Amino acid sequence: MAESIRMLSKNTVKFIKSLHQKKFRVQERMFFVEGEKSVVEVLNSDFRLELLVATESFIHKNNRLINSSSAHVIQASQKQLEGLGQYQSNDSALAVVHMKVNSSFDFPEGEFVLGLDEVRDPGNLGTIIRIADWYGIKNLVFSEHTAEFYNPKVIQSTMGSFTRVNFFYADLRRTFQAWNVPVYGAFLDGKNVHELRQVSSGVILMGNESNGISDNIGGFVTDRVTIPGFGQAESLNVAIATAVLCDNFKRLQVQ
Amino acid sequence: MAESIRMLSKNTVKFIKSLHQKKFRVQERMFFVEGEKSVVEVLNSDFRLELLVATESFIHKNNRLINSSSAHVIQASQKQLEGLGQYQSNDSALAVVHMKVNSSFDFPEGEFVLGLDEVRDPGNLGTIIRIADWYGIKNLVFSEHTAEFYNPKVIQSTMGSFTRVNFFYADLRRTFQAWNVPVYGAFLDGKNVHELRQVSSGVILMGNESNGISDNIGGFVTDRVTIPGFGQAESLNVAIATAVLCDNFKRLQVQ
Repeated sequence: MAESIRMLSKNTVKFIKSLHQKKFRVQERMFFVEGEKSVVEVLNSDFRLELLVATESFIHKNNRLINSSSAHVIQASQKQLEGLGQYQSNDSALAVVHMKVNSSFDFPEGEFVLGLDEVRDPGNLGTIIRIADWYGIKNLVFSEHTAEFYNPKVIQSTMGSFTRVNFFYADLRRTFQAWNVPVYGAFLDGKNVHELRQVSSGVILMGNESNGISDNIGGFVTDRVTIPGFGQAESLNVAIATAVLCDNFKRLQVQ
Repeated sequence: MAESIRMLSKNTVKFIKSLHQKKFRVQERMFFVEGEKSVVEVLNSDFRLELLVATESFIHKNNRLINSSSAHVIQASQKQLEGLGQYQSNDSALAVVHMKVNSSFDFPEGEFVLGLDEVRDPGNLGTIIRIADWYGIKNLVFSEHTAEFYNPKVIQSTMGSFTRVNFFYADLRRTFQAWNVPVYGAFLDGKNVHELRQVSSGVILMGNESNGISDNIGGFVTDRVTIPGFGQAESLNVAIATAVLCDNFKRLQVQ
């Protein structure tokens, strides 16, 4: 492998920097991942790597893993790495990775799917993906204007969990109609989730940060659920609410 | 009131800008709050206001509330407001507020207290305060190196909930020794919180973002608890974990 390690060229720098913009990510169908933990996770995943820019010590430490990947390997200094990505500090690696195809899936019987209706903040989306991974929810479906999965802030906030979920963007109404399963929607005036007794599977649906679940999707919600409040805060952040609902549904799930 | 409205002076600008730094907040024992919702909440709270810098329309809309406060009122433009605080956009108000005294309290019988051991990120602390308020947990105790309550990012992330909680910074070991109540500590290898049966009151203790609960506090934990994972994520963010634990404890609480 050592023979094929290249040095960082101006064109490569320009190419990687272009991937900070959605326009170029969509055009190239590639995105980037940075930091030791996330890059190791993506090397271990079924994502296909195009480029791996890494420090000598990262290359040395992960030699076997890198050899088994398809990536072109480029050695760079910490300073060079920090000029490529979004991290203030990066002494390990940055990978350029091919996107997966946005293909829908059938409803996975006996499981929960997490649905997001217009969650716009990349940090929230990333945190939600990490939560889904914690709770073993492997499948997610997003409305078309939900934040972009491959946004660097989303990828960063997932802490590597982006490698372990399936997802697609779609018209949620059509998807829910086709699936014909229970859709548990998070509302401020639904049934207290602590009073639910048994659940087996279905969609857990979360809405937009400001407006909640949109009216045109609300009609497809079969069960409106609410996290009980005991104090005076008006709401919970959508990622926080997702975690609390997933925790309750997994606790109540009858296999 | 209208007679006493002043214009923004250079000295006031300088004073408010100094409050971005902890050093000056500590020296003056004041902090600032910005944005319509939070400023209205602080006007409605028992915090004592020193200054209220606000747009004409905010002053007009909240006239009665402002008249009942002790604040010196200064009228300013949106642009001036945006130059004072941390918000990119602020068309309403910024308040300079006196800190409360850091006084300890006795353990509130029959309730939960949230304890934080070295939670360092201001956004996490603010989100945790909002969660405590949602779950009706009014009392919090922080280790001495937990993030500063009056940091502008903390205040902002609480979404107004900072007005509704009591807190103090202390040596947690001494505090827990004096209180002599159950301390439920969040660990990755504790008892599954879904399997707890009944709880009545005690401390819910969360640890540092990277290192969890420190060893020297661990000895004061009476019950190690864990959020069950069903997937492969290694951990949950501390604010997310706080919400899930509070949700479980409030669900299980026997009055």
